[in-house]
Amino acid sequence: MSTTASRESKRRAKNDQELEGKRDSVRFTEIEFIVLCCQYWRKVDDLMEVVECVPNFSTSDPKTVDSILAEIKKIKDAFLLDVTFDSYYNRLVVSFVGNKKSVLQAALNASLRAVELIDMRKHRGQHPRIGAVDIVPFIPIKNVSMEDCIRLAKEFGRTLAEKCKVPVYLYGDASPKNERGDVDWIREGDYEKLEENIVKPERKPDFGPAEFCAKSGATVTGARKVMAGFNVNLGTADLKIAKKIAKALHSKKGGFSNVKAMAAFIPEQNITQIGMSINDFEKTPLYRVFEALKVECARYNIPIIGSEFCGLAPLKALIDTAWYYLKTDNLSQGRVLEIAIQDAIEKGSKPE
Amino acid sequence: MSTTASRESKRRAKNDQELEGKRDSVRFTEIEFIVLCCQYWRKVDDLMEVVECVPNFSTSDPKTVDSILAEIKKIKDAFLLDVTFDSYYNRLVVSFVGNKKSVLQAALNASLRAVELIDMRKHRGQHPRIGAVDIVPFIPIKNVSMEDCIRLAKEFGRTLAEKCKVPVYLYGDASPKNERGDVDWIREGDYEKLEENIVKPERKPDFGPAEFCAKSGATVTGARKVMAGFNVNLGTADLKIAKKIAKALHSKKGGFSNVKAMAAFIPEQNITQIGMSINDFEKTPLYRVFEALKVECARYNIPIIGSEFCGLAPLKALIDTAWYYLKTDNLSQGRVLEIAIQDAIEKGSKPE
Repeated sequence: MSTTASRESKRRAKNDQELEGKRDSVRFTEIEFIVLCCQYWRKVDDLMEVVECVPNFSTSDPKTVDSILAEIKKIKDAFLLDVTFDSYYNRLVVSFVGNKKSVLQAALNASLRAVELIDMRKHRGQHPRIGAVDIVPFIPIKNVSMEDCIRLAKEFGRTLAEKCKVPVYLYGDASPKNERGDVDWIREGDYEKLEENIVKPERKPDFGPAEFCAKSGATVTGARKVMAGFNVNLGTADLKIAKKIAKALHSKKGGFSNVKAMAAFIPEQNITQIGMSINDFEKTPLYRVFEALKVECARYNIPIIGSEFCGLAPLKALIDTAWYYLKTDNLSQGRVLEIAIQDAIEKGSKPE
Repeated sequence: MSTTASRESKRRAKNDQELEGKRDSVRFTEIEFIVLCCQYWRKVDDLMEVVECVPNFSTSDPKTVDSILAEIKKIKDAFLLDVTFDSYYNRLVVSFVGNKKSVLQAALNASLRAVELIDMRKHRGQHPRIGAVDIVPFIPIKNVSMEDCIRLAKEFGRTLAEKCKVPVYLYGDASPKNERGDVDWIREGDYEKLEENIVKPERKPDFGPAEFCAKSGATVTGARKVMAGFNVNLGTADLKIAKKIAKALHSKKGGFSNVKAMAAFIPEQNITQIGMSINDFEKTPLYRVFEALKVECARYNIPIIGSEFCGLAPLKALIDTAWYYLKTDNLSQGRVLEIAIQDAIEKGSKPE
């Protein structure tokens, strides 16, 4: 809080200095006034639209991670929210926001750097992947539509393919509603089967050559809603059992329709993890998946020892958790104190 | 979102009009420029400090409620967050925010109106109370200290007492750390015992006369941290049992040290409610209280049928709920998506 106040003070002091300079010339034109105001308001304007991008890269090498993040940090009006990487998935997940222009630029620059630094021929990891830049989704957050994000994804895909000669597939809302839109289908066989798959007519990429790029693999990009990434740690090192549990939750294998689940072994802790992405946590709330997971674990007498959000936790997911476990009836986003305060200040009015 | 964008458009259009007018006079002075900028920045400045006030009034009459709320709405830079009132407590709880000046003014004006409209001689309700303006806490939210809020409470209390001749007691952090700071002690015996209590030397008010004011009772004011108001509905109409359950949770009767709990009967639904205030939900998280409540209910075979936050839900309370029920290990306020986005935009920088 004090940092914000301190920064605001310095900014105003700097503006005061600019004004002091202007007092020496007694008058100035309305053009100069308009330019100053536009510079101020444009910054406010630029921040009014918010897109999130959550690129996943096939690396967990700290130097490579830093290089990729540096590309995002260089972009004005792109703001890092979260960074996760680990050696057992050997994967880097970044979340950042900005306006349409800054997010596209940051996504491209980070991906170009990743293509330069990552060699898929050496990549081993427990997460399904087909490329150095494995998946790059664009997500509308504020004053941006899904169509905007689809356009961003296509622009991203086209440009990445042109610059790097990497094959790019569209998925999710950016793709027609058939098998080709399903990232599991696109990534079927992983990088290891890509050379064989990419020449099949039905697997012609949406951008770039239908040729195997050994160093970089292929990239998936698209647009989607906010998703919940949720991992649950099990008190067992038995990956075979963990895979059975994951299978029970996965949409295609008899589990919940909005859930993808996989199992991984975490050698540093000698435990297993069920890694899940819940692509519609409003229809399939986390508590429901968690309780089903407990049921499956009970079959094998396996304890759940912890969980974590992969990336950021959507507030709605927390509200639904309280709805179920505390039986709260009247809780919505606007009734969370920190959100209500922010909304009231932003609106600058007196809501009913 | 579109309402925000629309209002922003209208504001800019209005500013554009002002600029258009200025084009007719080719030049204007730096003084005019400074005034315009100050007007703009002052608004930003005014919003940088945030105080919350949560006054409780002894009424649930809709017309009286509207009159009281109208006084808050009239104050520039005071923003209503939440309004709750019900007939079984016969109590109105309002939450609003603003800067120190606007919050003080709104609290005073609303209280003066309440004193005018409410007659305690006719008041019946299930919630402990001693006055028309029963309790008025000031809470530091952003760029405001507890000391600031204590000063606000004292200024509020002094002014209310002067204008209305109502006795006012300081509680919580505004009061010395002894029995007099405890609102339960101040309200002991309720309004019905006030006439007898107020003349006792140890109960001399901090402001106003040590005389019974039959119409308005007395007022309590002070400063405190954010608190969680949490009510749980039981599937029983038996108030006697509900009172036993409430007693089990109350700090002074063998329950949790940060919890006050009471029982009420809700005639419209023929059920009972445990009403709780948890004054430090970080030390005593909601899930712990809720689980203990379940244990007590099990003794009588009473189901819990629902719950609600009285007022707004602090985000930390939801995070702790997920920590316990979903066993999440890595969740903090900054890792909630909506908060992270807002923080990033506010800081205007690229956090690590």
